[in-house]
Amino acid sequence: DSKMTNSAPENLTAKLEELHVNGEEEDDDDKVTPWEVTTTKASGIDYDKLIVRFGCRKLDEDIISRFERVTGHKACVMLRRGMFFAHRDFTAILDCKEKGEPFFLYTGRGASSGSLHLGHLVPFIFTKWLQEVFDVPLVVQMTDDEKFLWKDMTVDAAKKMSRENMKDIISVGFDPTKTFIFNNFDYMCPPFYENIVKIWKAVNGNQTRSIFGFTSEDCMGKAAFPAVEAAPCFASSFPHIFGEKGRKNDIPCLIPCAIDQDPYFRMCRDVAPKLKASKPSLIFSTFLPALQGAQTKMSSSEPNTCIFLDDTPKQIKNKINKYAFSGGQQTIEEHRAKGGNCDVDISFQFLRFFLEDDVELENIREQYTKGELLSGELKARATVEVQRIIAEMAERRKNVTDETVDEFTKIRSFPYQY
Amino acid sequence: DSKMTNSAPENLTAKLEELHVNGEEEDDDDKVTPWEVTTTKASGIDYDKLIVRFGCRKLDEDIISRFERVTGHKACVMLRRGMFFAHRDFTAILDCKEKGEPFFLYTGRGASSGSLHLGHLVPFIFTKWLQEVFDVPLVVQMTDDEKFLWKDMTVDAAKKMSRENMKDIISVGFDPTKTFIFNNFDYMCPPFYENIVKIWKAVNGNQTRSIFGFTSEDCMGKAAFPAVEAAPCFASSFPHIFGEKGRKNDIPCLIPCAIDQDPYFRMCRDVAPKLKASKPSLIFSTFLPALQGAQTKMSSSEPNTCIFLDDTPKQIKNKINKYAFSGGQQTIEEHRAKGGNCDVDISFQFLRFFLEDDVELENIREQYTKGELLSGELKARATVEVQRIIAEMAERRKNVTDETVDEFTKIRSFPYQY
Repeated sequence: DSKMTNSAPENLTAKLEELHVNGEEEDDDDKVTPWEVTTTKASGIDYDKLIVRFGCRKLDEDIISRFERVTGHKACVMLRRGMFFAHRDFTAILDCKEKGEPFFLYTGRGASSGSLHLGHLVPFIFTKWLQEVFDVPLVVQMTDDEKFLWKDMTVDAAKKMSRENMKDIISVGFDPTKTFIFNNFDYMCPPFYENIVKIWKAVNGNQTRSIFGFTSEDCMGKAAFPAVEAAPCFASSFPHIFGEKGRKNDIPCLIPCAIDQDPYFRMCRDVAPKLKASKPSLIFSTFLPALQGAQTKMSSSEPNTCIFLDDTPKQIKNKINKYAFSGGQQTIEEHRAKGGNCDVDISFQFLRFFLEDDVELENIREQYTKGELLSGELKARATVEVQRIIAEMAERRKNVTDETVDEFTKIRSFPYQY
Repeated sequence: DSKMTNSAPENLTAKLEELHVNGEEEDDDDKVTPWEVTTTKASGIDYDKLIVRFGCRKLDEDIISRFERVTGHKACVMLRRGMFFAHRDFTAILDCKEKGEPFFLYTGRGASSGSLHLGHLVPFIFTKWLQEVFDVPLVVQMTDDEKFLWKDMTVDAAKKMSRENMKDIISVGFDPTKTFIFNNFDYMCPPFYENIVKIWKAVNGNQTRSIFGFTSEDCMGKAAFPAVEAAPCFASSFPHIFGEKGRKNDIPCLIPCAIDQDPYFRMCRDVAPKLKASKPSLIFSTFLPALQGAQTKMSSSEPNTCIFLDDTPKQIKNKINKYAFSGGQQTIEEHRAKGGNCDVDISFQFLRFFLEDDVELENIREQYTKGELLSGELKARATVEVQRIIAEMAERRKNVTDETVDEFTKIRSFPYQY
């Protein structure tokens, strides 16, 4: 009925326009987008360059020290060893914690395989630890709609895969009284949709293309989807947790995620002021490298690059022995003489992620570098740690039934007042 | 996590690509899009040309006769006088009626003003009559999300306006036991969203631009919205009416609407087979002309072109006397000598829409054409009919409260089995 008006949104900040994730930085060796992560370097992605390129901040010693002071907890392995290496406004969350003001955690997963692999676990292990330390609500989005849009997959298959993946995620050990897990196809509701539509209004087609690299050959859904991943940053998307009527978009959220998801939240941070909402804070992880080497991250679509949660101890041992790229030398004699290279050795990288004991890790590094520790020995040590992580997961996974999933996905209130 | 795949949808039918609603037919005098309806001709839009341009069918005598045979009802004024002038697959609905197979009606409104005007009433008056004749469920979509996206308006204002407009729509006399009215912001739910996402996957950016004329300066929401207007064509969007689990997308729908809404449903008809769903049928109305003449339709944004539902009898009389474009001559003498032109006379057009008595209408036409009836007399006769319509609406409107709206918007089942 109405005349078409020129209601194109104002331009977002120039920064957003500049931050292409596809395209112009092709001359760089590293490719990091929500859909692809590769590098030509054996030591993996250059994360310091990525910080500059993405315009986020390094998670430095000062912030980690402040985190420890504010929370009274020693930083966990992934924080103190730089697996979570960068952030946006993490200090704003520490301010909240210091002042006793509310905030919440948001992370998620796009289920694309029946079982999670070790790389998928990293943000969830960290998020679980963070939730315990902060004692705040956590929302976990399963983007089954995204998978349906991007893949040759039915809605039912995407929903089923999400539900299977939820069981793995729950097995990380989340507290059901404080954790809401939802898949978009089943949770979609008016408050969630309202935030999506508000985000849709604030970003135009040029900007979406610039941020995500979509083309006009892509289906409508790809262009519409980023708002669906962005909307849970706003507390009002969850009235059962943060209150029915308050529209409490001043409760900020912290998103622990792998850095490839940054484009969604960069967009979200830029539109937040237009929605009179707090900008989400982010804390970014590096990628767990593939067995074959740090040129790429683990990928379910290439099973031999991954340790899966349902791999047996024997399979884990065999995969590490057979595929884990070694920084050692060709012969024992040569290794004893020249020593190994921890920076490219995948077994050592696994120990960095999962071995709790700093002193032991440092001993291993020294001995391997000097050639005192052999590649086979290093692989055996890494195998033990990976087997331990997977066994602990499997132990908890035994108790996760469909009823457990129902418990986590149920619309319910949390033991917090807002 | 996944690599970006080239999952752009297959091309839709070539027909869809060809049917631009903006752009290439600019050399035509008539402009008919969801956002603009204008012509340079005093007699109004050339609807026969529109049928050719849009690729729909004329609603001819044969179909109207068949309708009367199948339903046992005489065609109403708007049908027998060609105000509903074109269709897509209306015969498929008549087939259903004949065989006793289920179908439903879907129409809607994008609320852009506090009160409806006479032009808005046309599809609703017709739809109400059609529902009585067919005895089937009716769903009415209020596109408050569209208005929020297109206009400088808050979500709350758009929702409030939708709710006010619902009261006017209800006053047309719909049966609450068979009519579900919903606004998108409040109804959005998983089954509705699932259909939206399926439509998103089936149409790409080029196609959206081609159909609707969006540019990359338009916000993301404009590109995403067409699927929201298309989704209610599929019965599975309403599990409370058509069954929780059946996904009964084989129940076809018939959409009575003004022809400017055709692009949404042309798109929907093209994607329906991909969703394994029935193609919606359509029956299209002409536009009630503006008081000033048939070059444009009534528009709330220009109050003097409209009769509003809340206009008083005196206001109606004054508006028709002052603004209703006359096909009569400059002086009484000249009029008596040359006669008037019914084709451009707005008072006569109003009588065509609203005067039940065919014989009287024909008499008026003859007398006016011969100059026996004067413009003032014709205006007076039209005023009486318009006052009658508005008074009947006002009488029903008195009984429409917030509770009545709740009754129509409530999620509930209907007295039909599927």
